[in-house]
Parts: sequence; structure tokens; C-alpha cells
Amino acid sequence: MFLPVDEQIRRIRAGAESIVPADELVAKLERSAREARPLLIKQGFDPTRPDLHIGHAVSIHKLRTFQELGHRVVFVMGDFTARVGDPSGRDETRPVLSEEEIESNLATYEDQVFRILDPAATEIRKNSEWLAGLALADILRLTSQYTVARMLERDDFAARHREGRPISLVEFLYPMMQAYDSVALRADVELGGTDQRFNLLLGRTLQERAGQEPQVCLIMPLLRGTDGRRKMSKSYDNYIGISMEAEEAFGRVMSIPDSLLDEWLVLASGARPGELAERRAGAATDPLATKRWLAERIVARYQGAAAAGNAMEAFDRIHRRRQVPENLATTALSLGEGEAMWIGHVLRDSGLAPSSSEAGRLIRQGAVRVDGGVVEDRDLRLGPGAYVVQRGKRSFVRVLIQPGKLTPDGE
Amino acid sequence: MFLPVDEQIRRIRAGAESIVPADELVAKLERSAREARPLLIKQGFDPTRPDLHIGHAVSIHKLRTFQELGHRVVFVMGDFTARVGDPSGRDETRPVLSEEEIESNLATYEDQVFRILDPAATEIRKNSEWLAGLALADILRLTSQYTVARMLERDDFAARHREGRPISLVEFLYPMMQAYDSVALRADVELGGTDQRFNLLLGRTLQERAGQEPQVCLIMPLLRGTDGRRKMSKSYDNYIGISMEAEEAFGRVMSIPDSLLDEWLVLASGARPGELAERRAGAATDPLATKRWLAERIVARYQGAAAAGNAMEAFDRIHRRRQVPENLATTALSLGEGEAMWIGHVLRDSGLAPSSSEAGRLIRQGAVRVDGGVVEDRDLRLGPGAYVVQRGKRSFVRVLIQPGKLTPDGE
Repeated sequence: MFLPVDEQIRRIRAGAESIVPADELVAKLERSAREARPLLIKQGFDPTRPDLHIGHAVSIHKLRTFQELGHRVVFVMGDFTARVGDPSGRDETRPVLSEEEIESNLATYEDQVFRILDPAATEIRKNSEWLAGLALADILRLTSQYTVARMLERDDFAARHREGRPISLVEFLYPMMQAYDSVALRADVELGGTDQRFNLLLGRTLQERAGQEPQVCLIMPLLRGTDGRRKMSKSYDNYIGISMEAEEAFGRVMSIPDSLLDEWLVLASGARPGELAERRAGAATDPLATKRWLAERIVARYQGAAAAGNAMEAFDRIHRRRQVPENLATTALSLGEGEAMWIGHVLRDSGLAPSSSEAGRLIRQGAVRVDGGVVEDRDLRLGPGAYVVQRGKRSFVRVLIQPGKLTPDGE
Repeated sequence: MFLPVDEQIRRIRAGAESIVPADELVAKLERSAREARPLLIKQGFDPTRPDLHIGHAVSIHKLRTFQELGHRVVFVMGDFTARVGDPSGRDETRPVLSEEEIESNLATYEDQVFRILDPAATEIRKNSEWLAGLALADILRLTSQYTVARMLERDDFAARHREGRPISLVEFLYPMMQAYDSVALRADVELGGTDQRFNLLLGRTLQERAGQEPQVCLIMPLLRGTDGRRKMSKSYDNYIGISMEAEEAFGRVMSIPDSLLDEWLVLASGARPGELAERRAGAATDPLATKRWLAERIVARYQGAAAAGNAMEAFDRIHRRRQVPENLATTALSLGEGEAMWIGHVLRDSGLAPSSSEAGRLIRQGAVRVDGGVVEDRDLRLGPGAYVVQRGKRSFVRVLIQPGKLTPDGE
């Protein structure tokens, strides 16, 4: 029924940051094969942030691998916390959601995640099932099992404590709740990014105290965003969304620095070992061609091959025929109160003109193009969307106009 | 119905360390008088430690004052925590108690506390009434209202964190539970020692967040023990128990250093202002006479005047007639495995003999007396109790032999 353990381990390990502890995973897989009983693989998700990007997809593809190997994948939706929210009101990333919002976000989430996973082999559970019924006595037992010092070791808490920024005591309870999810499910393996290491290890501790075999923590690397610097996050606008419009996604992949290419090939292309090795070698000699291949591949993974082909054509049409540089940088602009942004402000805020009055002069001279067409209307306003804005013959900027204000989501 | 507010304040303030905040107490008393509605005065007690000493009695006498002023006194027994215990197993001061132990300790407690308070005007409530029903969502709301940094400000936590000694997260929840007791009772005033200041103030915070008028914290000083150095505690054996045998209690008061006399007169004598002033003046000129007056007074408060008179006589019989010094130091010895201690070890461990073989020689010479009688049996063994042991004419020690091993109770 199952592949040989060696082969399973090879596939699980590929691209993983670490397996803690690796020998326990071997033992679990051996017993699973012996008893013909699949392992339970757990991952949590936050219903307040249902928009997934290809950074999230790194571990979701790993879950897909577990499904292909015949194991059970369980997503735990953190609906309990979303219902309570952050009662301190300090943490904007923990809004209180209504029942309807939770259900709607779940649907959005499923739409994206089932582009990768087999819906028939995926269970989705809500942690309110077991958390809502915990009483104070249970919580005293759970919290007694870890110390304040250990909590303060967690990187983000350590930094905030050092800098004197307040940590609400309730925030010390969230990791316990995530860890208790593993107890409730009797998880064999939990997946998470390197920023989840602490919480995943706490799951082991609580399972052991509950007399269960502790889970193995499969830690996945965090994908860096299109800027090549920070981890991918919607709040940094350096992301490629799983349900992002194909042309936009294609253009964003083309904008990444060459230094990021190897990392993305490994974590985001999904290429099989042979092809992966070939493309990694190719990246050194012809990064542009490799990037085009990667862009088409990433779009094809989530939007299908046809959409990927069209996106590449559209990209070529704009960039090749009009000599727009392929590695064009994107400037994101946010709309304030109105629903569109005046072209003078677009030129000024994207750095193509030193002031809006100078922008007006350039327009009168016929020196400004948007998506290749000369701007003749000095009152032109651009709504939300992506544009290539050009000044004269050689100055180009890709401008992304976004509705409302962006606030960091702390992701 | 009530005394004038000024007079009430005067009696409440007498001997108190601080009233936080004093103006809110005035406002509460004024409203109470206006509406003919007594205030609710709360104090907590720990059912794992039902043995009270005259240090505890300092605040209980203050509760008595409130009863005399017509207010409601509510004792909150922390039975919820006693049922759960310290689940980390780290804290020996938090054993798990059975239902029967809790009831038995409550009876012991009542026996002592009703030597001071009016049983008819005292309510005893168990905090399991309201704590057992709290669910995780409630606890998240409560814990969100204070920060890790604020908890780490508490003296004992601060010291342990600094020294790298573990603090279980559950210990951060105990103060919240005590504070929630004030919410459940809608307490107007909570009493506690200076070591309770943090917890009492936290009660104010939770009440405010719950939309209640916050309680006033009436902080009472901690009585120092008979050694004149550390706060009174059973674990330091520097205490005078409320139900302690009268002769033992009398002797212990006589053993306190003169430097402690003024503090004890103020906090432990219960003397009215006029007499108190007189005795404090007398302490400077004749400390011995003042100490005798105080010893008789303290015994009389809890055991009655007859027992106090007898205790003084017994004390005089031993000390005066045999020239035993009145300020005799007490040495506490613990029994090991057996049920009695060999006289040779008593002499050695109390410092009357340099070794047990030397002790044997002294006994053969007829140079050792216990409670005035010459020891003739070299195999004499002393069971638990208090003894005056004498070597030769001028070396005396009061020896207190205690069963089992003493472990600090962290009181």
C-alpha cells in the first residue's frame, strides 16, 4: 500500500528546512507501513487571512506529497481565536470575525488550497470543536507545562520584551492553543514555516504530557518575496497570490532579482529533480530565459497552462514590442479617499516627475504614455490596476494602483 | 446607622500600611452612609494552610473593625486552586486537596478566625463557585487585560526571572483568579498584606474592565516574627499560633528582642489608643515589664484571660524560681525518623555540649537538667514538645522538638 520508507523520506525531506526529530519520522513511517495505517499530517490556518500566496504554497505542496504517499491531511482552521479575536484590542491582526465571515473566508481558502490538494483526501476541522469546551482547570493543567522563560525565548516575544513593547498575557496562551490542537487530533506530523518552530515544538511537549506519542515537526523554509529581501507577505506587496490575475503574476515573477532565482526554482517551481537540476544550472548562464520559464510555470500551476501562455504573450507584447525593459520595477500606490488617482500624482509618486506641475508640463509635451498610448487628457485618472507608465523614450515604471490603505498584517 | 465617615476612616486607617486610593474609600463610605448600604469587604484565604498565626490576625482584626462599623465581611476560600493544585508539580506549597481535606481545613480555619470575628456577620464563599465555570473564551478576555511585563514587575516573579528560576505560566494565572474573585463578589474593599499589593491592584483592573467600580486596596503591614528579622511564618518557626498552647505562646512572646516590642504593641496588642501610647512609652524604660504585659495580652486575646494568667504563672515558676533567664532563646530541633530524640543529641544540637560523647560525660556528672529535674538516665529520649534544658548553673536553652522535617511553606 505505501512506498518504501526510504523513498517516502526522500520525498518528504526534499526542500524541507528540518525534520525534528528525523528518526521519529522514520519510526512513524515504518509503523504506518507495517500496520497499513496512514499518518495524520496537520497544518493550521488562520481564517482571518484567507488569501494565499506562493509562499504559503510551499508547505501546501508538501502536504500534497503526503497525500500522494497515502497519508491523511488535516487542516485545522483557527476559528476559535477568530471568534474571540484579540480581546486586548492591541493586535490588529486578530480581528473578531462573524460566523458568516469565517464561512466565507473558509470558502475562499478552499478555492485556493484545492488548486494544490486533493479535496477528497483533505479534512478541514475547526478548533472551536475542542477549544470552546476547555474549562479553567484544563487550562491550568496545560499552562503549567511551560514556563514564562521558555515563552520569552520565542524570537518575536524576546524582541518585544527587550524593547519594552507590551505583550498581552493572552498572547502567551495562543501557542498553547495551537499546541493543544495537536493533542486533540493526535497529530503524527505538523507542518509549518521556520517562524512556527516554537509553536510546533510546544505541540510535542503537550502531547507527551497527555501521554501521546509526540508529533514530528516538519519545518519548511520561508519563501522570500519578489523584492528578494523580506519574506513573502501581502503587507509588503512582494507576493504572488495563488488566485492572482495571470498577467499580473507573470509580470511579478519576471521582476524578481536574479539572486532570488535559485531559491524560487527549488521552492516554487515544483519541478521534478532532473529538470530542477537542469534549470538551476541554466539560471547561472541565462537568468532571463530561466525566469520566463519559471514565470510561465508558476502561473500554469495555479491558473492552468492556457492562462500561462496568454500571460506570457501579453507580457511580450508590452515589453518586447515597446522596448520596455523586462526587469521593470513595480511601484505600488494606494488610493486615498477617491476611487482613482490623477495621472499627475501617479507621475510624481512613481518618481517619473519631480512634481505634479512638472508632470502637467510633460503631458502637454506628449512625453507621457500609459500602457503604450500617449496621454492627451491632462485630467486622466487611473483606477485600481497595473499599468506601465513611460516618460520619454527610456524611463518606465510598472505602477500598481491599489484600493484603500495598506496596513501591515503582521503575517 | 453608620458612624460618621471621619470616625470610620480613623479606625480603618489605624495600623494600616496604605489605602489605595484613600479618596475612593471616603467616597464609598459616604455613599454607604447616604444609601444605608454596607460595603462588601473581601479577604482571601488559602485552604491548604489553615493554621493561623498572629501575623495573619493583623488583618483579621481589621476585618473585625469593619464588622463593628456595620459592613459586610466576606472570606473567599481559594478551594478552586486547592482542588487543581499546582499541576506543574514544581510548587510544594500548592498540594492537591481532597474534598474532605478542604472541609476539614475550613473547620480548622473557622475555629481560629471566629476567635476574632463575629460568626453571624461573616460570610465564607468558595471561589470554585465562579471559577470552575470559566471557559477558555472568558480566560482569554481576562488575561488580555494585563501584560507579561506587568506580571514580571511583581517582586517574587522579578527575582525568579532575574535568577533564571522557572516560573510556570500557570503561576501568572493565579493572580488573575484572585482578582476575578473581586469581580464575582463586586468587592468594595480588599484586605491583604504588603506582599499582596500586586494582586489587590489587579483586582481593581479587572473590575474596571468589567464595568464595575474598582475596589479599594487596604494594605496591612506584615508582622515580623519572634526572631525580629523575617516576616512571621510557620516555616521559619518564628510564629505565635492563634490556637497555640498558652504556655508556649507566652514563652515565645517573652523571647522577642526588645527592638520588636514597639511594632508588636501596635500590630498585635489590640490596645486602645490611650493605653497603646502609654505602653509604647513604657517599652523604652522597662521593656521586660512591657513584654510581660504584651505576652499576657496576646494569650488572653485568643485563649482567654484565665489561660493567660496560668501561662504567666507557669512561666514565672520555671524562670524566676530557677533563675532561668527570661529572655531565653528557643532552639527548634526536628525529629528525624524516630519519634523521640536522644538527650545526647539534644545537648549537642542545641549547642550545650560540643559532642554527644561530651554530653554523656555531663549527664554522668549530674550536670544536666530538663525542666528543672536532674537527668539520671543516659538513654533519656525527648518526644515532641518544649523543654528548658540546663547545663550546670548558668547555661540554659529552650528547646522545641518538632515532629518530622520542616520545609519552608513559602508563606
